[in-house]
Amino acid sequence: MKDDAQAFASSFVAGARRLGIDSGNAAVLYLAAGGGACRTGRYPAGARVRVSTARRTVTALVHLVRADIVPDGEVGLSDLTWQRLGASEGEPVRVRLAPPARSFAFVRSRIFGADLSVEAANAIVGDIAAGLYSDIEIAAFITACAGRPLKVEETFALTGAMVQAGTRLEWPAAPVVDKHCVGGLPGNRTTLLIVPIVAACGLTIPKTSSRSITSPAGTADAMETLAPVDLDTERMRRVVEQEGGCIVWGGAVNLSPADDVLIRISRPLDFDGEAAMVASVLSKKLAAGSTHVLIDIPVGPSAKVRSQAAAESLVRLFQAVGQAYGLTIRTVISDGSQPVGRGIGPALEALDALAVLRNERDAPADLRTRALTLAGHVLELGGKAAAGEGFALARATLESGAALRKFEAICAAQGGMRVPEVGAFRHDVLARRAGYVAAIDNRRLARVAKLAGAPKDAGAGVLFLAPVGRTVKAGGPLYTIHAASAGTLSEAVAYAATHPDIIAIVEDE
Amino acid sequence: MKDDAQAFASSFVAGARRLGIDSGNAAVLYLAAGGGACRTGRYPAGARVRVSTARRTVTALVHLVRADIVPDGEVGLSDLTWQRLGASEGEPVRVRLAPPARSFAFVRSRIFGADLSVEAANAIVGDIAAGLYSDIEIAAFITACAGRPLKVEETFALTGAMVQAGTRLEWPAAPVVDKHCVGGLPGNRTTLLIVPIVAACGLTIPKTSSRSITSPAGTADAMETLAPVDLDTERMRRVVEQEGGCIVWGGAVNLSPADDVLIRISRPLDFDGEAAMVASVLSKKLAAGSTHVLIDIPVGPSAKVRSQAAAESLVRLFQAVGQAYGLTIRTVISDGSQPVGRGIGPALEALDALAVLRNERDAPADLRTRALTLAGHVLELGGKAAAGEGFALARATLESGAALRKFEAICAAQGGMRVPEVGAFRHDVLARRAGYVAAIDNRRLARVAKLAGAPKDAGAGVLFLAPVGRTVKAGGPLYTIHAASAGTLSEAVAYAATHPDIIAIVEDE
Repeated sequence: MKDDAQAFASSFVAGARRLGIDSGNAAVLYLAAGGGACRTGRYPAGARVRVSTARRTVTALVHLVRADIVPDGEVGLSDLTWQRLGASEGEPVRVRLAPPARSFAFVRSRIFGADLSVEAANAIVGDIAAGLYSDIEIAAFITACAGRPLKVEETFALTGAMVQAGTRLEWPAAPVVDKHCVGGLPGNRTTLLIVPIVAACGLTIPKTSSRSITSPAGTADAMETLAPVDLDTERMRRVVEQEGGCIVWGGAVNLSPADDVLIRISRPLDFDGEAAMVASVLSKKLAAGSTHVLIDIPVGPSAKVRSQAAAESLVRLFQAVGQAYGLTIRTVISDGSQPVGRGIGPALEALDALAVLRNERDAPADLRTRALTLAGHVLELGGKAAAGEGFALARATLESGAALRKFEAICAAQGGMRVPEVGAFRHDVLARRAGYVAAIDNRRLARVAKLAGAPKDAGAGVLFLAPVGRTVKAGGPLYTIHAASAGTLSEAVAYAATHPDIIAIVEDE
Repeated sequence: MKDDAQAFASSFVAGARRLGIDSGNAAVLYLAAGGGACRTGRYPAGARVRVSTARRTVTALVHLVRADIVPDGEVGLSDLTWQRLGASEGEPVRVRLAPPARSFAFVRSRIFGADLSVEAANAIVGDIAAGLYSDIEIAAFITACAGRPLKVEETFALTGAMVQAGTRLEWPAAPVVDKHCVGGLPGNRTTLLIVPIVAACGLTIPKTSSRSITSPAGTADAMETLAPVDLDTERMRRVVEQEGGCIVWGGAVNLSPADDVLIRISRPLDFDGEAAMVASVLSKKLAAGSTHVLIDIPVGPSAKVRSQAAAESLVRLFQAVGQAYGLTIRTVISDGSQPVGRGIGPALEALDALAVLRNERDAPADLRTRALTLAGHVLELGGKAAAGEGFALARATLESGAALRKFEAICAAQGGMRVPEVGAFRHDVLARRAGYVAAIDNRRLARVAKLAGAPKDAGAGVLFLAPVGRTVKAGGPLYTIHAASAGTLSEAVAYAATHPDIIAIVEDE
C-alpha cells in the first residue's frame, strides 16, 4: 500500500499509563474509544503506531477501550509496550501512525525471484529489529526464504545483517571459542561442563544460552537454578574478563535482536530452513565475538536433524558461511537417539551436571563422555591441545577438580552460586514387564516433564532411569516424576499412565 | 509443532463478559492473570484458544488482564469475539486450547514445491473459514501462492474451496447475471446504474458489493446513503425474487467467508496475485448463484491493472477458471486513467448515480456512458439483446425512466429509499493558472477525500470538476471539498494546498 509521507507526519501527545495487560508477543497501545485521538479517524483499532518517549520508540497495535479503562488525555500501554519503551507512569509519549516499512519491497522482490542482496538483507533485518514489521510481514519474509532456499551468498548476507542489527562484543585476545548444539535432546546440558573445563584451561568462552520455548528446559533455565543468568552486556563482560567464561541468558544481552523476532514467528510455522538456522547460530556467535566455534549436530529420529545426509548438508553450509566471515568452524555429528543424562527439567539437569563436575561415582556417564568429547574438540580448536589430545586434557581438568572450581567461580562472578531444589511431590513410573529397553519416545517423555511443571517450576521434571539397552525387572523403576504440587504431579502421572510405551520394553527371548 | 491430541482435551467453563474492547481484526479472550485458568499454565498470553457456546465456536488469542477488569470465574471477550460468538452477558462459555490446524501441512507442501490439490485447497480454506489459522499462517499461505503463481488447475481448486466454505445461493431460473469491476477507480459507481437497468429488462442480478477498505467509498458505502444494505441472505433473496435485483453489502451474507479473511491479510502485504484475484471474484459470483458474469478491467497507471498485457493475462485466467465451473464470462478492458463521474465519497457518488438515473441534463456523461456500455454487455450476455444492440436497449431503459423506477423499487424493497446528505462544510480548490488539464493524481485526490472524512462521514469527499482535457481559467474551480466538520475540512484543505499538482495544468502555447 503506497501512501504519502505527510499522512504519517501528524501526531499527538498523551500521558502513558500501564494497564497491566499482558498481550503476549503483540505490543498494544490502548486508546479511549470516543476520545480525541480516536475521533480523528486516524487511529482505528488494528492500526500500527509508533510510540515514543524522548529516549525510545516502539511500534504497537491500536486497540480501542472504554473511557473508564483509559481516560482521555492518556494512552494505555500493554506490558510489552511498557517494557520496550521503558516509560514511567504518566510520562508524556508521542503517538503517530507507523509508516509501512520501505524494505518490504525487498521481501516482495525475493518472493518474485530476486536473490537477497547484502543491501536487501541489511534493510529488512534492520527494520525487523527496529519493530517496523508486522507479524504477517515477518511471516511473508520467512516463507519467502523457505520455499526457494537461500543460496550461500544470501545466507552470508542474512547472517551479516543480523549481526549488524544488534550489539557486537569484542574481546582483547583471540582465540575466543564457543560451542553450539543444533536441536535439543532432552537433558543435554553439556554446556554447563564444557564452559568450566575450557575456561579452566585458559580459553575465553563467552557463552550465551537460550531459555526453553517448547522444551522442558533450556540451558539458561538449568543454569539459573545454580546462579543468576540475566546479566547485561557490561556484567557479562566483567565475568568473562575475570573468569574466562560465563553461561548467561542470551535474551538479556541483545546480541541478535532480529533473530529473536524471527524465531518467534518461524517456530509456530515450523519451516525447518537450513539457511535460517545457520544464519541464526552464526550471527549470535559473530555478535558474541567468537573466532573458533564447535557445532554439535545430534542426528536421530526425534532430534531436529533426522538423517546423516541432512547433517552433512548443514555442515557444508556452516563451513561456507563461517569461512566467509573468518570463523574457524569444527562440526561434530553425534548420536541423537535418546536423552542425555538422567534429569529432564531445569533443576534435575543442573544436578546431573553438578554430579559430573564433582566426579561423583554415579554421575551420568553418557553426559560426562559427551561433554568431555566436545570439550576436547574445543580445546583442540582453541590451540590448547594437539589433535587427538583434547579429550585427555578435558578429562584431566575435570578429574583434578579444576573444572568444578572454575564453575563455582563463574557462578560466584555471575551473582552467587545456589543449590538447585527438586520438586517435593514425586511418583515412580514402573516397568509393566521384564525385558530390555528397546526405544525411548523423547517427545512424549518431554511432555511428561512439561505436564509436571517444567520449565516454569524449576524443580519439576523427570528423572530418567532406563536408557536404551538397559535390562529391567517387572515393577522396576523406569523414571521418576517430580513436581512442585500435587495437582501438576497428578496431571503428569495420568499422562504417563495412558502412555505406557514411552519406554518401549521388549521381553527377552 | 507436533503435539498430543490429549493436551488439547482439557477445558474450563466461565461466564462471558463483553469488555468493550475493539481489538481490530484480532479476536481476543481476556483471562484474569492469577485466576484459576491462568494458574494451570495452559493459557499463557498469546495462546490460541477455542471459545464455544452451545451454538457456536470461535478461535481467539489469550491476553491476560488484572482481576479488576475480569473477575475470576469470568472471561472477557473483545468486540469481535463477542460478535462472532453471538454470546449474551454472563452466558457460560467453554474454553480450550486450539489445536494446530492440520491442513497447514498442505501449506508447507505448497511452499516446498507441491501443487495445490482440490483436497489441499478444501482443507486449507475450510480451516481458514473456521478461524483455525493464525494471521501468520494465513500470511504464509498467501506468500506461498504468490512466489510460484498458482496454475489454472490450482486456481480452480482454490475457487471451488472458497465457494464450499460459505453459503451458496440458488435461484429458480437461469440466466443469473452479475458484473464485477477489477480494481477501483475513484467514483466508479456504475453498479448503481447497471443493476436497475438490467433488472428493469427482466434479468436476475443478485449483486453483492464491498465496503471501502482503503478507498474513499465502496459501492456498498455509496448505496447505503440511498437505502439499507446490511441484508441477511433471506432478506436479500426476497428483494431479488420481488425486484429481479439488489445491491447489498456482501459482508452480511457470508458468501465466501474465507475470502474476507484472505483479503484482510493479503491487502497489507500487497502481493497482486492474479490467481488470488480470480479465485476471490469467481468464488463470490459462484456463491451468489450467477451463471453469466461480466468482468470490467480498467487499465491505467494508477488503476489496479496497469498494462494491456497484464489485463490480457487476467482475461485468459478468468475465462479458463470460469469455464471449468460452467460460468459464461465476458470481459471488457476499459479506460482506467481518471476518476469516473464527479463525486468521490459515499453521498457524492450516490448523487452522481441518481443524476444519471433521473436523466438530469448535467449528469456526469462519462459515468453514464460507462454504465450504459457495461449494462449493454450484460444484457447481451443474458440474452435480452442481440450482439451489438445491448447499448441501445440500456439507453432506452434509462431514458424511459424504467431504470429509475426499478432503482426506487429496489431501494424500497431493501428497507426504504433515503436522500444522500452532503457535508455542510465546503471549500473550493482553484486553478493557480489557466491552461488545460493534463493529468490527475487519482491516489492523492482520493487521499483528500479521505482526509475530509470519507467513507466514515458519508457526506464527506470531493466533487471533481476538471477532467483530463478540460480547459480551465486561473482561479476557476478544480474540485470542491465537502466535510462534516470544520476540523476535517481544514485537514483536507491543508493537504490540498501543499499538493497543487493533484490536477496537473499545462498552459496553452
